[in-house]
Amino acid sequence: MKRVYLDNNATTAVDPRVKTVMDPFVCDLFGNINSLHRYGSEVHPAFSKAMDQIYTGINASDESDVIINSCATEGNNTVLQGIFHEALRDEKTCHIITTLLEHPAVLETCRFLEVLGAQVTYIAPTTDGIITAEQVKVAITPETQLVSVMWANNETGLINEIAGIVEVCHEANVLFHTDAVQAIGKIKLDVTKIPVDFLTFSAHKFHGPKGVGGLYIREGVSVLPLLHGGEQMGGHRAGTVNMPAIVGMGEAMELATANIDYELTEVARLRNKLEDAIMAFPDVRGIGSRDARTPNTIFISIKGIEGEAFIWDLNQKGIAASTGSACASEGLDANPVLEAMNVDKELAHTGIRLSLSRFTTEEEIDYTIEVIQKAVVRLRAISVTYSL
Amino acid sequence: MKRVYLDNNATTAVDPRVKTVMDPFVCDLFGNINSLHRYGSEVHPAFSKAMDQIYTGINASDESDVIINSCATEGNNTVLQGIFHEALRDEKTCHIITTLLEHPAVLETCRFLEVLGAQVTYIAPTTDGIITAEQVKVAITPETQLVSVMWANNETGLINEIAGIVEVCHEANVLFHTDAVQAIGKIKLDVTKIPVDFLTFSAHKFHGPKGVGGLYIREGVSVLPLLHGGEQMGGHRAGTVNMPAIVGMGEAMELATANIDYELTEVARLRNKLEDAIMAFPDVRGIGSRDARTPNTIFISIKGIEGEAFIWDLNQKGIAASTGSACASEGLDANPVLEAMNVDKELAHTGIRLSLSRFTTEEEIDYTIEVIQKAVVRLRAISVTYSL
Repeated sequence: MKRVYLDNNATTAVDPRVKTVMDPFVCDLFGNINSLHRYGSEVHPAFSKAMDQIYTGINASDESDVIINSCATEGNNTVLQGIFHEALRDEKTCHIITTLLEHPAVLETCRFLEVLGAQVTYIAPTTDGIITAEQVKVAITPETQLVSVMWANNETGLINEIAGIVEVCHEANVLFHTDAVQAIGKIKLDVTKIPVDFLTFSAHKFHGPKGVGGLYIREGVSVLPLLHGGEQMGGHRAGTVNMPAIVGMGEAMELATANIDYELTEVARLRNKLEDAIMAFPDVRGIGSRDARTPNTIFISIKGIEGEAFIWDLNQKGIAASTGSACASEGLDANPVLEAMNVDKELAHTGIRLSLSRFTTEEEIDYTIEVIQKAVVRLRAISVTYSL
Repeated sequence: MKRVYLDNNATTAVDPRVKTVMDPFVCDLFGNINSLHRYGSEVHPAFSKAMDQIYTGINASDESDVIINSCATEGNNTVLQGIFHEALRDEKTCHIITTLLEHPAVLETCRFLEVLGAQVTYIAPTTDGIITAEQVKVAITPETQLVSVMWANNETGLINEIAGIVEVCHEANVLFHTDAVQAIGKIKLDVTKIPVDFLTFSAHKFHGPKGVGGLYIREGVSVLPLLHGGEQMGGHRAGTVNMPAIVGMGEAMELATANIDYELTEVARLRNKLEDAIMAFPDVRGIGSRDARTPNTIFISIKGIEGEAFIWDLNQKGIAASTGSACASEGLDANPVLEAMNVDKELAHTGIRLSLSRFTTEEEIDYTIEVIQKAVVRLRAISVTYSL
């Protein structure tokens, strides 16, 4: 059967070139980089190269830190819990501002910290589905320690006003964290131009391996570690250094940067072609204007068709799509992003996400259009909530 | 140049059979297991198989949980911070008992929790270098929530009185955690016979991949998660499931279990041969009796020779050994384990660790003996602290 993967916001295929770079470090160059002997020292050059690739990918200055960890969930938890623990240690109130659009890795961590005594403000998006600098400005209080706003949303692809939000935070002397998982490899991102304090990313979202991510920490800023123990990562993150994963993430980052123009033009073109075909149906609502989104993402609501049913239909034809975040797929609640955007409840249950990558081909998009056109007609014909 | 790896307590080579099992899940079967489509569902059987291999390896009951995470450091932090956060939430005093023998992943976490308000008791080992049930019994107070004692020590290989300690803890209604990183694959370990409440392990210590570990949680016991976010691992550990790593750990666990008798007989025989050859020199002190240690580990002090100098000499001949934990190798302090064992300061600076694995050959041991014999003579001849 034909297989078309249009769920690249959930995870991506590892680029074969990335695997090639990783392979020697599994069975052969397996040493612990902290060991003083040859097995340790021989992996140092590859480590340095990977770190260079990562620093270059986000244009981090040499004086900044990039802490390698196991995933973006860990990076997000590190920043949020670190800020909370610092306030606890100093016997201060902990006030964090975040948004209803965040991934569970931020939202659930904030809810947990509330249980432990933190104060959290959750900003709802504008009717355009984004978070603005003005909204953040209004929410900041003299007790605010941290603002955490994702760069681009995982479900809609909508890009928040990060540059403006950073300015607002720094004017108020508040640290700013962004979950950039859905931005890396999809849009140009430069932490020198937009001086966020903390930025989290995850290799498996840009054709790197699973089980590895990074936390950028701007020069002069610090946060308590989440994992305590050995002195790896300059004392910022304990745990044996995962060499195959790190060289894989480095290579994936370099490839993502090299392909960013392709992403912004060709991937966007294929995305638009697919979106146009779906939007040609009546009673279809696309969420967010194209220019405001990452180039690979479509989030669309097809009146009268349950998202789950539609995904299932596509799956039967070999096409992988989703109703939203895979991280939340164990519960089948209405989509929280659409709820936050005040999309009415019926539409909220009909949202589906199609997310492309640089490996998506024109032929795959043509096939998908064909399948979707038939599915919409068929499912609307049997829908109890839709009549033409 | 000949290469002999005798630092298997720091990390191990991935068994090529483990890599073979992992490879298909990198570029091809890359789906997110939480996705509802085919790319997600097609990896379920391999996930289940790996979990079965892991449960079987430690003889965990089906009703118990094994939470897959990124490393033993994460597992240890999860238990210790989880207990602390629970006490914080319930506005109770948090009292934890641990030992001076622990890996930094436990020790440094406890020190961090003390800064946040926890009370921690650190038990020093007996002159035999181990922690006994009697010592734990004396340390428990009515406020103690958790006792954390490693199963086997990473530097000496000495095995603590875990069965007795579990009994003492459960009599006092206190939870018991063990860092079993150095026990898995080296000695038989059965969580049904010795009903610890929490047990942490790490795949890269038993010829599995880096970047993946597990936390066993006994039926009826629970702990707050460390990583909050998506609902992976039944809500116990958020973060995209790292399939290649998990299938690798499963296979590595099965191979470790299958090779345990070889470890206890053949690896022990080679270890003893090497140890006998070093002990034949005068003024050499072996730490811990053989029966009390894991079968692969030698920790030995050669009077008059700095551990660092000795390691360097061996490294020049292609032999990898260490002065102790790679996780602490960025600082060159006297070995904390020997200090805890009241070994005098001069000896504490001369300790070296040689740790074998099932891949260590007789030829490698013969070569190592030859090199060590020459090194001892040469280094003692130029030693300023040693005269025959």
